[in-house]
Amino acid sequence: MSVVIRKADKNDMRAVLDLIRELAHFEREPDAVEVTVEELIKDGFEGHPEFQCFVAEVDNEVEGMALTYMRYSTWKGKVLHLEDLIVKEPSRGSGLGSRLLDRVVRYGYDLGVKRISWVVLDWNQRAIDFYLKKGARVLEDWDVVQLDEAGIKQYVSNLS
Amino acid sequence: MSVVIRKADKNDMRAVLDLIRELAHFEREPDAVEVTVEELIKDGFEGHPEFQCFVAEVDNEVEGMALTYMRYSTWKGKVLHLEDLIVKEPSRGSGLGSRLLDRVVRYGYDLGVKRISWVVLDWNQRAIDFYLKKGARVLEDWDVVQLDEAGIKQYVSNLS
Repeated sequence: MSVVIRKADKNDMRAVLDLIRELAHFEREPDAVEVTVEELIKDGFEGHPEFQCFVAEVDNEVEGMALTYMRYSTWKGKVLHLEDLIVKEPSRGSGLGSRLLDRVVRYGYDLGVKRISWVVLDWNQRAIDFYLKKGARVLEDWDVVQLDEAGIKQYVSNLS
Repeated sequence: MSVVIRKADKNDMRAVLDLIRELAHFEREPDAVEVTVEELIKDGFEGHPEFQCFVAEVDNEVEGMALTYMRYSTWKGKVLHLEDLIVKEPSRGSGLGSRLLDRVVRYGYDLGVKRISWVVLDWNQRAIDFYLKKGARVLEDWDVVQLDEAGIKQYVSNLS
């Protein structure tokens, strides 16, 4: 079995979108995925790329991916964020996720960032233990707040 | 009293850093702020800006700021994130924070993003109630994971 972890290119975006959809389906929100292959190509590879994606290839098939981008900390300056790390169901437990995380941390190290962040579901103790073992810390006292598309429109209409 | 909410320029970065430091001091982590005025100017105003900052000016003095940047959702594509919204202690309760948030939401609306996100401390019920009233939702089941500078170095040294 030949495993390669590499930077994604445009031609991987179809497989990357399949992984994104597989995860959304697993999380029972299949309709939440609005992004398209064309958008992923435009946003990730044209002009100023909005993200940097890595893929895990097993025998020339994309079996996993990690998608990262820069954020800006008012304390630390430029920092790296790992938005998603997905491994196909049949390939889980084979170490692909770990190798993708290794690649992301090395990428952040090479960029010289002072922090790499991601999020984890608070009931996913196996993942939390894994991250703690890797030297990360888990902040339990922050909640994520989201204003969605309908919420933004409603908010703005209330301003006028 | 004359209040102006506007996009920040380079000359505001000194006042913006003072606000960042005031908050860090309040949170009892004054030494956590490593960013400098020079970095804020370089990162926010040169080449491809890493963030977009807004300030609230009262009688020509900067009394508050909101710092935003783009993130990338694998479900929604380009989304806006509000990293920090800070109002000087003496000016709190005067509606400046609310007006800054209004400006940020309108900015996201004009950009056409499908989501605006930020974080809130889970014990800050007053803020949570305010955001809910504004139409946002609060996700309580995600924890933030951070690998800091020392953690990144340690992680990478374990790879070799």
